[in-house]
Amino acid sequence: MFTHPVSVRYLEVDGQGVVFNMWYLAYADDAMTAFLAHRGLPYAQLIAAGLDTQVVGSQLTWQAGVGWGDDVAVAVSVAAWGRTSFTLDFEVRRDSTPTCWIRTVYVVVATDGSGKRTVPDDLRAALGEPAPMFPARP
Amino acid sequence: MFTHPVSVRYLEVDGQGVVFNMWYLAYADDAMTAFLAHRGLPYAQLIAAGLDTQVVGSQLTWQAGVGWGDDVAVAVSVAAWGRTSFTLDFEVRRDSTPTCWIRTVYVVVATDGSGKRTVPDDLRAALGEPAPMFPARP
Amino acid sequence: MFTHPVSVRYLEVDGQGVVFNMWYLAYADDAMTAFLAHRGLPYAQLIAAGLDTQVVGSQLTWQAGVGWGDDVAVAVSVAAWGRTSFTLDFEVRRDSTPTCWIRTVYVVVATDGSGKRTVPDDLRAALGEPAPMFPARP
Amino acid sequence: MFTHPVSVRYLEVDGQGVVFNMWYLAYADDAMTAFLAHRGLPYAQLIAAGLDTQVVGSQLTWQAGVGWGDDVAVAVSVAAWGRTSFTLDFEVRRDSTPTCWIRTVYVVVATDGSGKRTVPDDLRAALGEPAPMFPARP
Repeated sequence: MFTHPVSVRYLEVDGQGVVFNMWYLAYADDAMTAFLAHRGLPYAQLIAAGLDTQVVGSQLTWQAGVGWGDDVAVAVSVAAWGRTSFTLDFEVRRDSTPTCWIRTVYVVVATDGSGKRTVPDDLRAALGEPAPMFPARP
Repeated sequence: MFTHPVSVRYLEVDGQGVVFNMWYLAYADDAMTAFLAHRGLPYAQLIAAGLDTQVVGSQLTWQAGVGWGDDVAVAVSVAAWGRTSFTLDFEVRRDSTPTCWIRTVYVVVATDGSGKRTVPDDLRAALGEPAPMFPARP
Repeated sequence: MFTHPVSVRYLEVDGQGVVFNMWYLAYADDAMTAFLAHRGLPYAQLIAAGLDTQVVGSQLTWQAGVGWGDDVAVAVSVAAWGRTSFTLDFEVRRDSTPTCWIRTVYVVVATDGSGKRTVPDDLRAALGEPAPMFPARP
Repeated sequence: MFTHPVSVRYLEVDGQGVVFNMWYLAYADDAMTAFLAHRGLPYAQLIAAGLDTQVVGSQLTWQAGVGWGDDVAVAVSVAAWGRTSFTLDFEVRRDSTPTCWIRTVYVVVATDGSGKRTVPDDLRAALGEPAPMFPARP
């Protein structure tokens, strides 16, 4: 399972002593590009082909928070993919224990603003067979 | 319907020319406290009673982006509430047209770290009868 | 003196209970565009003329912090201007008492990436006569 | 010279195609704690001794911007220290070429809110002899 380390910033921790919720979407974004690069598709290659991705939906579920100085990492897996979209699962872990799950749907779009595109072959190959990390949440 | 204005920051707009996804959770957080205050429960009153809220889940769905200088507002409604939790619906609108929907579940906790608490009467009164703005998403 | 209100976000307050230092540059950026609009130059007008601004230097000095729920505003004044640059002074105030001073130097650049430009007449008129809010700091 | 790597986030890059100015203060904050740890003083040790630091001033000067995917690092050096304060110099580098300089003054404070404290011996030892990276800027 691919995991991407997170270095929690002091500024990301709020008055409750844990990372404020929005920063998890920053962690997921970082982990997404690292995951694609790890699977052989640097994001620059996608852009060079005139393609980009847009987030159209994201579901986050927290079980616990993380703090500054904690050992945090994000595991990434492919949950599904279709003709113009794909879905990634992220599991945020502290000391290897899951604390948060994120499922995000991306659509492939043209960088020239002309709309959706079919998932290209190199991205399809990088994604591989879907292996969701958790069931759909109600 | 209560709506809270959003002043999009230049820094929130990314290389795709639209507000980066994580900032929507900042907009929702701002709108949540404004909504409670509007309903007669300033957040400071909750804190003074030894209570706070924690986000345990959030679902975001985008239909379009928003940019710098756009006329943006967030409509807020109560989707549901239970013994220790409540759910708010947020609809982000640009020029009064919906562009993003957010459904967030909060639990009421004690500020002393001792865990969940029953939704207090003043918060219950502020929330009022549930009026979801959109159906559950698959 | 032009002042721009700041609505401190919960997420901007860090573990020390005050707004983390970097957010002051977000406040200054918001106040800068509000100031120019107030002086008759909406930023869109500058962009439409093929011009933009870049921050080339900024000095921040804190005397106190600000917290969530505080009554915060940023006063703005023109400190100086030259052929291709201008300098703005910002004073962050809590309950009308100064807590932080920022002096920022901007250069006018072409939006086509071709570099510096002379401060255009409409921007010059909007800036008016320099009126620094504080002396240069050592 | 100690240098701390920066992984520029996609969200930090604004409509001008470069990292928005405020994020440099996040980079400096990250680099500051990494620098102290590298010099033998993990921040947790300072906190455990009832001490913390506060930024009271910061000067930033940019020569160029940095973008997503760029090879960025922050070099750190001690510029000066006094009885209750110390000053760090940061040089942000892209492909080893300086693009931004930051000089930040910190004061040592008690975590119990009782105010300034003398720079403790372990911090003094970690800081070592001052070695400014650049002259004071006007």
